[in-house]
Amino acid sequence: MYEGAVQDLIDELGRLPGVGPKSAQRIAFHVLASDAEEVERLSRALTDVKAKVRFCEICGNVSEQPQCRICTDTRRTSDILCVVEEPKDVVSIERTREFRGRYHVLGGAINPIDGVGPDDLRIRELMTRLADGQVEEVILATDPNIEGEATATYLARMLRGMGIAVSRLASGLPVGGDLEYADEVTLGRAFEGRRRVEA
Amino acid sequence: MYEGAVQDLIDELGRLPGVGPKSAQRIAFHVLASDAEEVERLSRALTDVKAKVRFCEICGNVSEQPQCRICTDTRRTSDILCVVEEPKDVVSIERTREFRGRYHVLGGAINPIDGVGPDDLRIRELMTRLADGQVEEVILATDPNIEGEATATYLARMLRGMGIAVSRLASGLPVGGDLEYADEVTLGRAFEGRRRVEA
Repeated sequence: MYEGAVQDLIDELGRLPGVGPKSAQRIAFHVLASDAEEVERLSRALTDVKAKVRFCEICGNVSEQPQCRICTDTRRTSDILCVVEEPKDVVSIERTREFRGRYHVLGGAINPIDGVGPDDLRIRELMTRLADGQVEEVILATDPNIEGEATATYLARMLRGMGIAVSRLASGLPVGGDLEYADEVTLGRAFEGRRRVEA
Repeated sequence: MYEGAVQDLIDELGRLPGVGPKSAQRIAFHVLASDAEEVERLSRALTDVKAKVRFCEICGNVSEQPQCRICTDTRRTSDILCVVEEPKDVVSIERTREFRGRYHVLGGAINPIDGVGPDDLRIRELMTRLADGQVEEVILATDPNIEGEATATYLARMLRGMGIAVSRLASGLPVGGDLEYADEVTLGRAFEGRRRVEA
């Protein structure tokens, strides 16, 4: 459609998640109109991320060192381990400043439709980490959807009988939300998980 | 939030049009999970487009040569000139296969709010092209929105008394929309039904 280099860029951009043909075209023309320096920065950021970033050999989070900042932070407790699906979940939880333990990143969730089974996740690595008996509690912080629940159930079964407390993040109404906009499942969970109020 | 290279990439991606923080994060993790070769291709496509692509010295369309493929195509008629805002509009019109004349790309539309006046568009170049009297009809194919209409009206006035037929794409294009989002059939009909403009 376009001449070589423009179409090549549109094609490459179109392979990115969430970037359709129209967005790819819009981005390509934005790039054409940008300073060469700005484009150079984006181009370098792309190759840098592949060259510099690896996965932490302990927890599987993204890291520029063999071990990530959280795994090497001596101020954090090793008694409690939070299991998440993706590195971005670590960022979300860190933002709450509620958790001072360690993480384990599975790299996804069990999803038979997409062909993701337990062996495709970092579950073996999790069991190896737990073998030394240092961890007292595992929080299963997988997503509150079908795949995340299935993964949590699978892991809870694997951890049974190891003398480790296993917990799951509470489901309920989002804080600041409106009850009338909550879906049935969330509202049902909020009822199940209701807590006594000391007035 | 993330370590250096990942956050750098998220920041750079977030500057692209239509890419919010969540999309930038999703794309960054997609990049991390992609083959190095694939990322290299995207990175190269970005710098290539800046290095190789220029604007056709005749029509202002994107081109890897001093003159674009359409301007140098001897099978096309030079009697009829289609004036568009952006290179992507040329692609949309070419897709209809309704038009066998030449193009003139203005590089935008008159938009006082964004500070784009007639002098910021390739209008002088248009008048120079028309000076030799070869063009018999000018089709004003600017977008059917306020800025596009204003630009068409402005051009129609400038072209008055030059002995050139001036037309505007027929309505049928949704008013308030963008030309680039029109489907081939609608855009083709709009070509067929173009009307003479009395300025």
